[in-house]
Amino acid sequence: MITAVRDAWIVTQDSQRRILRGDAVIDGERIVSVGERYKGAADKEIDASGDIVIPGLINTHTHIAMTVMKGVVDDIPFPKFLERVFRIDSDRTDRDLEIGTKIGCAEMIRSGTTTFVDLYYSEDIIAKATAEAGIRGVLCWCVLDEEMTTQKGNPLQNCKRFYDGFKNKRKIVPGVGLQGVYVCNEETCRGAKEFSDEKDIPLTFHLSETREEVNNHRKKTGKRPAEWLNDIGVLGKNAIAAHSAWLTMNEVRLMAAAGMSISSCPVSNMKLATGGVAPIPEFQRYGVNVTVGTDGSTTNNSLDLMAEMKTLGLLQKSSRWDPTVAKAQELLDFVTVNAAKAIGMQDSLGSIEAGKYADIVILDGGAPNLRPLLPENMISNIVYSGSSSNVKTVMCQGDVVLENGRMTTINEKEVLSGSEEIWRSLCLR
Amino acid sequence: MITAVRDAWIVTQDSQRRILRGDAVIDGERIVSVGERYKGAADKEIDASGDIVIPGLINTHTHIAMTVMKGVVDDIPFPKFLERVFRIDSDRTDRDLEIGTKIGCAEMIRSGTTTFVDLYYSEDIIAKATAEAGIRGVLCWCVLDEEMTTQKGNPLQNCKRFYDGFKNKRKIVPGVGLQGVYVCNEETCRGAKEFSDEKDIPLTFHLSETREEVNNHRKKTGKRPAEWLNDIGVLGKNAIAAHSAWLTMNEVRLMAAAGMSISSCPVSNMKLATGGVAPIPEFQRYGVNVTVGTDGSTTNNSLDLMAEMKTLGLLQKSSRWDPTVAKAQELLDFVTVNAAKAIGMQDSLGSIEAGKYADIVILDGGAPNLRPLLPENMISNIVYSGSSSNVKTVMCQGDVVLENGRMTTINEKEVLSGSEEIWRSLCLR
Repeated sequence: MITAVRDAWIVTQDSQRRILRGDAVIDGERIVSVGERYKGAADKEIDASGDIVIPGLINTHTHIAMTVMKGVVDDIPFPKFLERVFRIDSDRTDRDLEIGTKIGCAEMIRSGTTTFVDLYYSEDIIAKATAEAGIRGVLCWCVLDEEMTTQKGNPLQNCKRFYDGFKNKRKIVPGVGLQGVYVCNEETCRGAKEFSDEKDIPLTFHLSETREEVNNHRKKTGKRPAEWLNDIGVLGKNAIAAHSAWLTMNEVRLMAAAGMSISSCPVSNMKLATGGVAPIPEFQRYGVNVTVGTDGSTTNNSLDLMAEMKTLGLLQKSSRWDPTVAKAQELLDFVTVNAAKAIGMQDSLGSIEAGKYADIVILDGGAPNLRPLLPENMISNIVYSGSSSNVKTVMCQGDVVLENGRMTTINEKEVLSGSEEIWRSLCLR
Repeated sequence: MITAVRDAWIVTQDSQRRILRGDAVIDGERIVSVGERYKGAADKEIDASGDIVIPGLINTHTHIAMTVMKGVVDDIPFPKFLERVFRIDSDRTDRDLEIGTKIGCAEMIRSGTTTFVDLYYSEDIIAKATAEAGIRGVLCWCVLDEEMTTQKGNPLQNCKRFYDGFKNKRKIVPGVGLQGVYVCNEETCRGAKEFSDEKDIPLTFHLSETREEVNNHRKKTGKRPAEWLNDIGVLGKNAIAAHSAWLTMNEVRLMAAAGMSISSCPVSNMKLATGGVAPIPEFQRYGVNVTVGTDGSTTNNSLDLMAEMKTLGLLQKSSRWDPTVAKAQELLDFVTVNAAKAIGMQDSLGSIEAGKYADIVILDGGAPNLRPLLPENMISNIVYSGSSSNVKTVMCQGDVVLENGRMTTINEKEVLSGSEEIWRSLCLR
C-alpha cells in the first residue's frame, strides 16, 4: 500500500539536517521517497500542505504502566514519595497494568511519540497493550536481586522468558532492564549484561538519579555507580543509563569510552528536586550519546516529549548560565536520531529517509503557536514554540495510529472509562 | 442571553478552592450560578460532561506584538540577543504589530488565557487587534526617558493619550508601563506612578531580570533597583514587577510592605540563562502577590500558561532542592486569583463564582493525559499533566472565543497568511 503525504515541510533529520518542501511517500512499512513531488498512484493521500513532518519521537525512559497512577504523589518529600509509590506499585493487577499502558500509549501518540523504552516488570502484559495501541515498545524487563523483588520467580529468568516469547512480535523489541545498583548486586548486573550481549538487545538502568544513591554505593563498594558498573563490565554500546544526573567527569569519560547512551529526564529530576543536573555538554563533548526520557507519570506527570525537549534545554541553559548550550537542533536530535542509535535502530528509525520505517508525525502548520513558520525558524519553532496540541497525524511503521486527532487503534473512551476506579483502588488505600 | 455549561467538574478557585460537579450558568457577561443543576431555559447549551471548567488564565507579563518575531534570537549570548531584538523592534509597522497581536491572542486563547498584561508602545494598535480577538488586554503603554526611545513625542503623554482614548473600551484596561530603571530616571518613574495613582490603574515594569541591570543601578545610585523604586515612592498596590529574579530579602520585604505583585517569567529567565530565580517562597512568606508571565515570543518562545505554570513549579523545586515548594494548587492560584488581584480585578475575575465575569476555559476531560481524573488529583492533573492540547472551549466576559477548538472571532488563516512575509522583512535584514 502506497501512502503519499503531500506538500509538507519535511524535517528530515538526515545527516545534513535538511528541511525539504514536498511529498513523503510510504510503501507499506517503509519510506520510499522524500521531498520530491510524487507522480505515481497512491492508495492513500494525506494533504499536509504547509504542515511539518518530523520523525516519530523516541522516549528513552518511562514506566508506562504507571500512567494510571497520575497525581498521587506530588509536592511531597522524596522519601515519602518512594515509600508511597513502592507500596502502590507492588500490588497491581494485569488489568490495571494494561489500562495504564494503553492510556500511556494514547498520551504518547497524541504528543508525537512512536517509540518508547520501558523499564518495568510484567512487560508481557505491557507488550500486548502496546501492540494494540500500535506503537513501538522497547520493553526492558526489570531485573534485580531476587530477595529485593515482588516478582514471582527469578527476575533474569523472567526477562529471558519474555524475550523468547516476544522477540518476533511486530513493533516489540524485548530488552533487559536493571533497576539500579541499589538493588542489583554484581552477579545480577553481570547476568543482565551477558544476556543483553548475547542477544544484542538494549540494556537500560537507572543511574545516579539521587545523591543518596551515589553516596550509599560509595560507602558499600568504595566506588561511584558508573565507575563500579564499568569495572564489572556492564557498560557498553547497548546500555542506556536513565537520569545520569550525579556524575563526575571521570564517570562521563568512562561512559563515553563504553560507547553508551544516557536518557536525561529533566522534568522528573526537577519535580522530585533531586538536585543533580545531567552534564549534557560534557556528554556531548566526550561522545556519550544523549537522549531524553519522560520517566513515569508519578514523577513528571506527563509523557509528552514535545514539552520535555524544551524543558531539557531550559534546565541546561539556566543551570549553566549559558543560553548557547543545548541548542534547538541538538534538542531535536536527542529525541530522534540519537534515540534511534540508543536502541540500536539507527538504520531504521530517527530520520525521514528512504528505506527507513515510516515513523512520522505531522504537526499542524496552521497552528498560531508555530507561526510565522519558515525554514529559518522551523527547528526553533518545533522545539521552543511547539506543543502536543500541534500533533495532528501519527504513523508508526507505516500504520496510521492518529489521524487528524482521532485515534485509529484503541478505543480511548473505553480504555479511560475504567481508569478512575483503578486509581481509587490503588491510590486511596 | 443565558448559556448553560452542563455537568462539568468546576474548579471554582473560590476562597475554599472547591471543586464542584454540575452546571455553570452565564447570563450575558457574568456568571450567575455555579455547581447546581440549572433547570431554567438556556439560549445556549454546552455539554461539558466530565470536562473540567477552570477560570480563564491571566498572563501578567508579555509583549504580545512581538509574537511575529518567533524563533529569530535563540541559543545566543544575551548581549547579542538584546542588540538584535532592539534593532528589529525599533522599526516596526502598524500592520505587523496588528498581525503579531492577533497571532498572540490566538495562541493565548488556544492555551486557555483570557486576560494578558502587555508592556509595549503602540498599545492603541494592540488594543484594536485584541478587541477583535475578543480577549482582555491590560495594556500598559511603555514609558521611558524621552532621549532613550524611538516613540514619537513624550512617552508619558503618549500613555495618557492612550488611556483617554481607550479607558471605556470593552475588555480593554489601559495601564502604565515603565521599561525599567536602566532607561527610566526618577522623574520618569514618578510621573508614571502619579498617573497610575490618579487613575487607579496597573503600573507594570521590568525589575531585576539580570544581574548586570542590578549592578549597574547600584553603581549609578548606590541602591538596588527595588530599594531605589521604593525610596522614590514608585512601589504600591497597583505595581506588577516582571521577572523580579535578582532580589535581596530586604527588597522582598519592601515589596511586600508596598502591597505589590510580581510576575515571574521562568521560561524566559531560563532560556536567556540570566541566572536569577525569583524567590517565590519568600514572596509568599512576606506577602508579595505572586503571578506568572510568559514574557514575549522572542524569549520563551510561547505564550502558553498551561506550560508556564508547570515550568515555574519545576524551576522552584529544582533550584531549591525542595519538592514541597510551589505546590500544584499554588501554581494554579498564581495564574488565576492572584493574577486577578494584581490587575485590581479580584472582584470580577480569577474564580468561577456568581457575579464574576464569565471568563471560563473548558478542558477536555476525555483527553488521556488528564486521566484518571478525580477530585483528588484534579489540580495536579491540570498543572502537571495538562497542556494547551486540552483546551476545548474558551469564553471571555461571556463571549465564546474558542468553541470546540475553532476560533470564533478572528480569521486565523487570514491573519497567519501574512506572517511569514513580516518575519522575513523584520528578521532577515
